[in-house]
Amino acid sequence: MSATNTQVRLAARPAGLPKASDWELVQEPAPTPGEGEFTVAISHISLDPAMRGWMNAGASYIEPVELGAVMRAGAVGEVIASRHPSFAVGDHVVGAFGVQEYALSDGAGVTKADPSLAALPTYLGALGMTGMTAYFGLLDVGRPEVGDTVVVSAAAGAVGSVVGQIASIKGARAIGIAGGREKCRWLTEELGFDAAIDYKGEDVRRALREHAPRGIDVYFDNVGGEILEAALTRLARGARIVICGAVSQYNASEGVKGPANYLALLVARASMTGMVVFDYAPRYAEAARELAGWLQNGSLISREDVVRGDVSAFPETLLRLFAGENVGKLVLQIAPD
Amino acid sequence: MSATNTQVRLAARPAGLPKASDWELVQEPAPTPGEGEFTVAISHISLDPAMRGWMNAGASYIEPVELGAVMRAGAVGEVIASRHPSFAVGDHVVGAFGVQEYALSDGAGVTKADPSLAALPTYLGALGMTGMTAYFGLLDVGRPEVGDTVVVSAAAGAVGSVVGQIASIKGARAIGIAGGREKCRWLTEELGFDAAIDYKGEDVRRALREHAPRGIDVYFDNVGGEILEAALTRLARGARIVICGAVSQYNASEGVKGPANYLALLVARASMTGMVVFDYAPRYAEAARELAGWLQNGSLISREDVVRGDVSAFPETLLRLFAGENVGKLVLQIAPD
Repeated sequence: MSATNTQVRLAARPAGLPKASDWELVQEPAPTPGEGEFTVAISHISLDPAMRGWMNAGASYIEPVELGAVMRAGAVGEVIASRHPSFAVGDHVVGAFGVQEYALSDGAGVTKADPSLAALPTYLGALGMTGMTAYFGLLDVGRPEVGDTVVVSAAAGAVGSVVGQIASIKGARAIGIAGGREKCRWLTEELGFDAAIDYKGEDVRRALREHAPRGIDVYFDNVGGEILEAALTRLARGARIVICGAVSQYNASEGVKGPANYLALLVARASMTGMVVFDYAPRYAEAARELAGWLQNGSLISREDVVRGDVSAFPETLLRLFAGENVGKLVLQIAPD
Repeated sequence: MSATNTQVRLAARPAGLPKASDWELVQEPAPTPGEGEFTVAISHISLDPAMRGWMNAGASYIEPVELGAVMRAGAVGEVIASRHPSFAVGDHVVGAFGVQEYALSDGAGVTKADPSLAALPTYLGALGMTGMTAYFGLLDVGRPEVGDTVVVSAAAGAVGSVVGQIASIKGARAIGIAGGREKCRWLTEELGFDAAIDYKGEDVRRALREHAPRGIDVYFDNVGGEILEAALTRLARGARIVICGAVSQYNASEGVKGPANYLALLVARASMTGMVVFDYAPRYAEAARELAGWLQNGSLISREDVVRGDVSAFPETLLRLFAGENVGKLVLQIAPD
């Protein structure tokens, strides 16, 4: 195989927002599979807020990306060469293939994608880690009951938009917090959220008082910072806060801001629980079946914000997440349709 | 009845530490019971960090003490006049009688104390709200398993000292954090804690690394602030943090400091849950039986720090809590032995 594999590697650990010099573009020959391996030509690369954490040194829920290593990323691609018994040329596959054009795999953690069931980017969205995160975070940690009020931040983002829809499917009231009137309109008019709060244009605390008059039963937090503090002021008795992420804090160079009013947990006898989707790997198939059913019957809408470009567009595309420019799941498509 | 009832009433809402002018000493005739009522001559008054919160305006887990009202307090006393069928003159009783010499009661929320089973102050300590808080906070919210590492802050205080001992009784390793070598020695040598950390003389994070090498499974927090942040750095996977109080923050006039590293909850898949003892009222009797059994067989030691004085000594005695001067349960004894 004589193709060139262009890769985006981590060159430096960023302070604040990642900048061009934190990355390095490397070209090497595309890999050839050995026995039990296959080569994937990557078509779609997932962009996730969590990537910012993976770029930091130090222990976390997952090893940091080493300096000089290909940036970690979920991706979809097509098998173009195989010496693996379970993966054939032409198969569409999903896995942690990294930010590059070609990946070598032994099949560990790789699943197949059926493009006749859903568009390939959806396997990075509602049918991928995004959907799993929303599904298990909401249902296993948040545990909404029928009639509960569920509030989700970054609600127009990949995970948040699925969280609110699952809440509705399960009979809860879904309230989304998002930045901008257009995103809010999308949540209520297209996705069926019961209410949406534009944190750029509204007083979030006042809006929560209005839309959650009996308090918040489940708060699914993707952002941290002031919006987490606002939600803490409105907890119902026994509320569950799901800590899924804190995108407002990932690039804070002066350090993360903790919720000053965390004693609201005491007043409300509430809990705040961290979740990491990888813990649910043994149950991914179960969730994928249910999510696929909802997609097929129209009760769940998966929206991917697909940016087209070559793999070198990854660094600038990632910044769109932190600027809140994406609606739905941000995906970089590096292959033609 | 012609006795005078001296009362400590709340005169102003404090900013920071309560000062003399926040209180008012009032004398009125001791109350005479009507039909279905009885009069209690109070002998022992409980002093609790939570009192500081009750002095603030605004909604919390309990109504604030109204300006001009007798300060709320648990107390023990003796019935000196009764027109109530279940309470007779000479009975020793425990209830929310307030900071005063005599209280009128209709029996609601009042239980009897048997001075032959335990000293009267113990009914404000291990057999009172203190013991209930430790018991339900640790066992129902913290849920330690045999072999777990349990860390408790304000460990030489009323609740903390009981929490650590119950942890030991249940087969967990108990590590206390307290201020001063003498308190720490008391925890390990008298109460059987496995280790104690002197936050005034040691680096708490380093000491936690040493004493909890496999991480903290249950952290019972009475203090908030920097010690909560230190505990968050050492959570074991699936750790439970019990938020019982935040005595380091109650008098903070510049506002409460939230835990900046709360995302440790995500990394550890841990939870932080608030608890209020009043929710467990239906199960107080069950806990009291078990606690009394442990006291009798010597596996639980209740220590009360009894200050003698008249009721006017309450304001200055309360400050001892916030200065960390008490060891065990702080009680003001206003009657002779």
